[in-house]
Amino acid sequence: MSLIKVGVIGIGNMGSSHVKLLGKGEISGATLTAVCDPNSDQLELIKTKAKDDVQIFRDEDAFLNESGIDAVLISTPHYDHPKLAMKAFAKGMHVLIEKPAGVYTKNVAEMNKAAKESGKVFSIMYNQRSNPIYQKLREIIQAGELGEIKRTNWIITDWYRSQSYYDSSEWRATWQGEGGGVLLNQAPHQLDLWQWTTGLMPKRVQAFCNYGKYHDIEVEDDITAYVEYENGATGVFITSTGETPGTNRFEIAGDRGKMVVENNKLTFYRLTQSEREFNATYTGGFGNPECWTIDIPIQGKSAEHQGIIQNWIDSIIKGTPLLAPGEEGIKGLEISNAIYLSSWLNQPVELPIDADLYYEKLQEKISQSTFQKKNVKKVNLDVAGTH
Amino acid sequence: MSLIKVGVIGIGNMGSSHVKLLGKGEISGATLTAVCDPNSDQLELIKTKAKDDVQIFRDEDAFLNESGIDAVLISTPHYDHPKLAMKAFAKGMHVLIEKPAGVYTKNVAEMNKAAKESGKVFSIMYNQRSNPIYQKLREIIQAGELGEIKRTNWIITDWYRSQSYYDSSEWRATWQGEGGGVLLNQAPHQLDLWQWTTGLMPKRVQAFCNYGKYHDIEVEDDITAYVEYENGATGVFITSTGETPGTNRFEIAGDRGKMVVENNKLTFYRLTQSEREFNATYTGGFGNPECWTIDIPIQGKSAEHQGIIQNWIDSIIKGTPLLAPGEEGIKGLEISNAIYLSSWLNQPVELPIDADLYYEKLQEKISQSTFQKKNVKKVNLDVAGTH
Repeated sequence: MSLIKVGVIGIGNMGSSHVKLLGKGEISGATLTAVCDPNSDQLELIKTKAKDDVQIFRDEDAFLNESGIDAVLISTPHYDHPKLAMKAFAKGMHVLIEKPAGVYTKNVAEMNKAAKESGKVFSIMYNQRSNPIYQKLREIIQAGELGEIKRTNWIITDWYRSQSYYDSSEWRATWQGEGGGVLLNQAPHQLDLWQWTTGLMPKRVQAFCNYGKYHDIEVEDDITAYVEYENGATGVFITSTGETPGTNRFEIAGDRGKMVVENNKLTFYRLTQSEREFNATYTGGFGNPECWTIDIPIQGKSAEHQGIIQNWIDSIIKGTPLLAPGEEGIKGLEISNAIYLSSWLNQPVELPIDADLYYEKLQEKISQSTFQKKNVKKVNLDVAGTH
Repeated sequence: MSLIKVGVIGIGNMGSSHVKLLGKGEISGATLTAVCDPNSDQLELIKTKAKDDVQIFRDEDAFLNESGIDAVLISTPHYDHPKLAMKAFAKGMHVLIEKPAGVYTKNVAEMNKAAKESGKVFSIMYNQRSNPIYQKLREIIQAGELGEIKRTNWIITDWYRSQSYYDSSEWRATWQGEGGGVLLNQAPHQLDLWQWTTGLMPKRVQAFCNYGKYHDIEVEDDITAYVEYENGATGVFITSTGETPGTNRFEIAGDRGKMVVENNKLTFYRLTQSEREFNATYTGGFGNPECWTIDIPIQGKSAEHQGIIQNWIDSIIKGTPLLAPGEEGIKGLEISNAIYLSSWLNQPVELPIDADLYYEKLQEKISQSTFQKKNVKKVNLDVAGTH
């Protein structure tokens, strides 16, 4: 069987890393045949990382029209994900996009529609879905072991970035270039896992965003979001790039106990009876139902980016179910759009949000921006172990 | 030197426990000479717990005027704390009140004024201040070791109560009888420690309260509060009586690292340099300042209620500084009043709150209440180890 011819567009920090994987033949069933980036410095780097016969493009249309690729991995700045994905679907290509799905749900919904109509294999780089700890958490919750969820709480503040990170390119952490900060660049993994593991999307969000609090940037670097779910549960999501050492602690309380993911450990505090049942029948005043503290064993390692790319290729070749279907990218983005909108309107917002209003408000941010980056030193950063 | 003659008023769950301590002579320098409670069942209990010559009163004025006590421990329902304390100060008595200081800051401020004018020793039962783990946390923060505080986060959901607890008396968990729920009965310790250990009072609160969410009660049993501090730091406080097993995890992030209190352990994640300094000088993009994980040793045990009563008596006899001055009770109460007010007005509120407005809104809650308790079974609950 012939290899799937893959092209990579957007050769920044992440794109370079993907080119390396594909170029070294580490994705079974796939071969890297083309790359595209308008920036010539980046393309020089490619020559050291991929085989000599890889076609190099600077223009995206030439790349899509002339390269002869079957599938494209899109790792450009976020804004371009939906536009490029739609062009690729129109050409009959399979698509894997980097996270986030885009910057605003309005065109991500259009991308999803185009994907469906194309019938092609569409995935998103939610590599944390390949982490066995979150897979196990999801499995236990979806099996009903935790019972009805009462509260979720994710403190994900270990996305520390110093000013030099933000100064490494012009587009980063600007409304025009990136469309946001920690919510769009660092936290999309957790925003996705938050809904994916629990199976719950918030129905209402009230958020408190701090813009340029710890860095000389115009977008947010510190967030506290409060959410309410359809079933009455509440939740809190806290993220920041201004704290070190940060915390990564995800707690979910349910009718049958509590689960906590922290320090690469999954602990299940499992009640031997339903709390609601205990509440209704116990007569002793003070007292709690019996609880077992269980260390849930975690098998295997996270397959990370390689796992998602391989899964996408496997799905193309043999119909393997996707771990991270591209269409699901809109969920985490919907939450982050709601967080911004709540902060901008200074009021709670209901989900799904008004996608047109969000788009309009974002355009205002862009057009009203007077922010100038002072010390840009364009460099490629080594992302090993950081995403 | 003659013993301080102490009277206890309010012989419910906590009062019975205090009577036991004082009655058994476990407070050095003090003797229990009088008790007061309008409820005769409770007074029968006293006979089994204290010496035969303890005077028994059913009327508070007779108790204060005729008992000849030097000092009074007030453990009545919350509403009466300020009124009784003021009567006692007017009689020249020393006063120790149970937490909370009262239900609304309006009359707690009056109580504080009366305390000051009396010159008597005034303390509050913030027994958690005698816990060496919080003392150590406070000491390290106040010494500046953590640097400028960036964020506080307390998840204190291990105040589980079943319906039978709420059904154990008429006054509990009603606007008229108790003036609130988890914020006034269970969480006052943490509301106090939150500000006492950090030295920071919020300047702005936006809170989300759920009333009767997990229990057949009219007051709140589930809270999420977001706060902002004068220095720009943010915080979250989550409490509930509807989750089990709950969490008790207090995290404080600062410029020099992070401190976490959980499972009776105090961990200091200590940076070897200021994060602000690192942020400004580091040039490598990804990267963090060096961090040491330190288990802070905790010496001794919490002296609990006995410790606070003894400290109060020692302060009366020999001027020992108070661990929990009564006047400081208004701080935690101010935070909880702000949380309610934000929830009732459905908007953020600034601290100090408008005390008259709060009082007015509380009266509305009381007068508009149509709630009827269905299954009251009046019982005395054993509080050993629960408060």
